[in-house]
Amino acid sequence: MLRTHYIGELRQPLGGSVRITGWVERVKEVGRLRFIWIRDKTGMAQVTVSKENKALFEKTADLRLHDFILVTGKLAEKPIARVGVEIIPTEVKVLSKAETPLPIDVTGHIKSILSTRLDWRPIDLRNPKNAAILKIQATLVEGMQEYLNSNGFLQVFTPCIIGAGSEGGAELFEIDYFGQKAYLRQDPQLHRQLLMVAGLDKIYDLGPNWRAEPSHTPRHLCEYRACAVELSYIEDERDVMKVEEELVAAGIKKVVEKCQDELRLLEKEVEVPKTPFPVLTFPEIYDILEDMGKKIPYGEDLDREAEKLLAKYVKEKYDH
Amino acid sequence: MLRTHYIGELRQPLGGSVRITGWVERVKEVGRLRFIWIRDKTGMAQVTVSKENKALFEKTADLRLHDFILVTGKLAEKPIARVGVEIIPTEVKVLSKAETPLPIDVTGHIKSILSTRLDWRPIDLRNPKNAAILKIQATLVEGMQEYLNSNGFLQVFTPCIIGAGSEGGAELFEIDYFGQKAYLRQDPQLHRQLLMVAGLDKIYDLGPNWRAEPSHTPRHLCEYRACAVELSYIEDERDVMKVEEELVAAGIKKVVEKCQDELRLLEKEVEVPKTPFPVLTFPEIYDILEDMGKKIPYGEDLDREAEKLLAKYVKEKYDH
Repeated sequence: MLRTHYIGELRQPLGGSVRITGWVERVKEVGRLRFIWIRDKTGMAQVTVSKENKALFEKTADLRLHDFILVTGKLAEKPIARVGVEIIPTEVKVLSKAETPLPIDVTGHIKSILSTRLDWRPIDLRNPKNAAILKIQATLVEGMQEYLNSNGFLQVFTPCIIGAGSEGGAELFEIDYFGQKAYLRQDPQLHRQLLMVAGLDKIYDLGPNWRAEPSHTPRHLCEYRACAVELSYIEDERDVMKVEEELVAAGIKKVVEKCQDELRLLEKEVEVPKTPFPVLTFPEIYDILEDMGKKIPYGEDLDREAEKLLAKYVKEKYDH
Repeated sequence: MLRTHYIGELRQPLGGSVRITGWVERVKEVGRLRFIWIRDKTGMAQVTVSKENKALFEKTADLRLHDFILVTGKLAEKPIARVGVEIIPTEVKVLSKAETPLPIDVTGHIKSILSTRLDWRPIDLRNPKNAAILKIQATLVEGMQEYLNSNGFLQVFTPCIIGAGSEGGAELFEIDYFGQKAYLRQDPQLHRQLLMVAGLDKIYDLGPNWRAEPSHTPRHLCEYRACAVELSYIEDERDVMKVEEELVAAGIKKVVEKCQDELRLLEKEVEVPKTPFPVLTFPEIYDILEDMGKKIPYGEDLDREAEKLLAKYVKEKYDH
């Protein structure tokens, strides 16, 4: 590898030369010194170039925001840098030049609208806050998989292309399958159930699903991932609810354990939910909702507002 | 859950009543006894019904192959059953009746052809040998994911529907995307690379890919899963090869650790490959192949036979 260390690994004492890689986050000149802030996915370091090192000072003169560079040097023994880690370089090599100006503002001074951010998503993701969301997502999945793997659930991979819809309706993406009509699954439900028929008993399929619904709400995606669990020999819905709550708790527990830095960066606090979860039963929830001022006819679906009210009710009554 | 134990968990001493679930693998009558073999995904047990228990003997008279049943009873204190575990039942409940005769022979006496097996795949998978393959697959993936997660690779989920092919060629499945043309990805390559641009540095995407190539060889699938790894700041191809060999070794190591029963069932021996792997370099491999009697012009692709010859060469020369 070009680098010997991630920036996050740089701590004194580290004798000898180190090589780090990353992008230029800031360049500032003060008197006879040029400070180059370099960031990789683990943190930020200051590279301090002195005018006395004429060759290197000239070479780093046209470094621009988000140039990707390789820095060879030594850790400063008494760092004065605000970012904590300081490197006295012997060599700075540009791996890849950035365009100037960058297509979106990466300093955070000017907020870009969502469509611009998505057009330049790779640059947008260099913002540690945005990268943190992916880290938390991956950790949540890791926690869920660990729970499932260690509780006898077999990970399976079931087909995405199917011959007919599993949930009815017209919301299917149609594929031309060698001249025949086929569809992207809405859910791996059919194959999960066939694997129960096969006697595999407890399985999960962590994969993509699609719904061809033209929607503009933020609660709807045409392509999404699901952790689809199936289990045989249940007595009733409570056996399923037990797995669901343990799965959710295991995922969140892993996030709380491994993502404190990311949660702090996003200014979010997350608690591992206590199990078992409080249970509200039908049809009493209609009475609860009516007491809270929301009248829904018995048996009708709950809307978003009703879900929020019930969450509030559970928080108040069970502190959950 | 309907069951209190998997069959594989039944060991003396287990006082009190147990409940197991599974399908009927065999029914045999000898004198005043009826032996019902019941299998779940963990093993097989014999349920012994005596004619003295008239009600139960009558009730179990029309049990057929692959009926799914729930058996309540006690472990026999001195089991005489060939299958090892024996249960004296107090109750046998049919959860689901099988058709008689079954559409494929599940006793193993008559081998079904592949297309029949695939038509009845859920029943085919009740054969422990076939289920073992899925267990080994899941364990291989688990080992690979553990390696990647604990070595700083972030699991990401990238889009399956794309606007254009990533690898050129016409072998794309076309989708009707709200009246526009879109395609199923051949590989998550583009999005992996964009995540390198984002500075995420080391990632993997474990997901489906598609190739619309009408092929009838067993080496080709239209839909397949890949563990697609991407890493930044490599010096050369050896950095990639190092990750690849560690990934392969970690996956196989997990299989060797966790799937001994399944490997024995399939009569397969698997060794964890030693790392580092021996390295053969271009263009010397053409000389090696020529020495082995296979002449391929310098720079041409290797075919299947050439790959096999090189594997043989490495086995002989490096015992690897």
